[in-house]
Amino acid sequence: MKLYDGGRAPNPRRVRVFLAEKGITVPTEQVDLGKLQQRSDAYTAINPMQRVPALVLDDGTVIAESIAICRYFEALQPDPPLFGRGALQSALVEMWNRRVEFHLFLPVATVFQHLHPAMKIMVDPQVAQWGEANKPRVFDFLRFLDGELNGRPFVAGAQYSVADITAFIAVDFMRVSKLAVPDELVHVRRWHEAVSARPSASA
Amino acid sequence: MKLYDGGRAPNPRRVRVFLAEKGITVPTEQVDLGKLQQRSDAYTAINPMQRVPALVLDDGTVIAESIAICRYFEALQPDPPLFGRGALQSALVEMWNRRVEFHLFLPVATVFQHLHPAMKIMVDPQVAQWGEANKPRVFDFLRFLDGELNGRPFVAGAQYSVADITAFIAVDFMRVSKLAVPDELVHVRRWHEAVSARPSASA
Repeated sequence: MKLYDGGRAPNPRRVRVFLAEKGITVPTEQVDLGKLQQRSDAYTAINPMQRVPALVLDDGTVIAESIAICRYFEALQPDPPLFGRGALQSALVEMWNRRVEFHLFLPVATVFQHLHPAMKIMVDPQVAQWGEANKPRVFDFLRFLDGELNGRPFVAGAQYSVADITAFIAVDFMRVSKLAVPDELVHVRRWHEAVSARPSASA
Repeated sequence: MKLYDGGRAPNPRRVRVFLAEKGITVPTEQVDLGKLQQRSDAYTAINPMQRVPALVLDDGTVIAESIAICRYFEALQPDPPLFGRGALQSALVEMWNRRVEFHLFLPVATVFQHLHPAMKIMVDPQVAQWGEANKPRVFDFLRFLDGELNGRPFVAGAQYSVADITAFIAVDFMRVSKLAVPDELVHVRRWHEAVSARPSASA
């Protein structure tokens, strides 16, 4: 198999951190997003959505979408469980991963895509008003998350999960979007320090 | 358990169609979105995201997010499988469900939320330029999907799955967003007719 990876972009990083937590190594090939290589004919043939990452299996089957790739490896190697175990825990991890995706990761990415000058070549049209409208959403969700993390160590409960990976990378991505976690959100800051200290964080 | 449902809104409908395909009946309570009841104190205590649906278990645990609720029922009652079986099929269903969510369902919802006058009370600010920018995304994805459905009966492969539910409801939702599937996309139209003819479609 081969993983088409995308350097510092947040979605490829989700898969790399996931694999590091699992202790899985996969041959990778870098797709140069700065050169818009994800829109090349060669890569479009692999993933018509022109997005990274994508995993190509030995028989040529392509699995795109970060979380689909993560789920594939979770099924191949269930330990340590990063999507929860059992009906309830799995549902709660899914709930939290989605809450973080839709109310933190997506707004942070929207601020970047619609306000950062470097994204002009990739996002057409950039809608500055939409970028601005997403800033308060980021802080609303972080305040909510801070209350939740007051009562437990990780985003979805007592165990580190894929929801922590999504949230951790979204928070790191805030810097590029010129946003910062407010000082008073002490539980988010404590959690972010803890997940950043894991060996997987450098993946 | 009790399912907090939301009438004609697309996300609650995803769960109802899923349950109908499984043959599962759950006691429900309607949340009146027209009256913004999802923002009431009572409902905010159930789901702080102020969104429907939400499933409350007998011990008070809340599972929010449509797909998290679906996964919970999939784990309780695996037949018929709607998230795929085995590592590869499950990953492909996840990939397709996410492609449909991000490149069809979300753009269709964005057109509705940012351009429909009735959504002014719920979406602040409405950004008309962002609504307009999402129209071509809908058609780009439908054209891509049409090519895929040329070779297989359902969105994620040979079997009906949750990706069909997401896509079917997104296509139905196009009407409210004043968008229509172009006549020439014959494979999408054939697929939409087939999924619309299933008994679950009226759920």
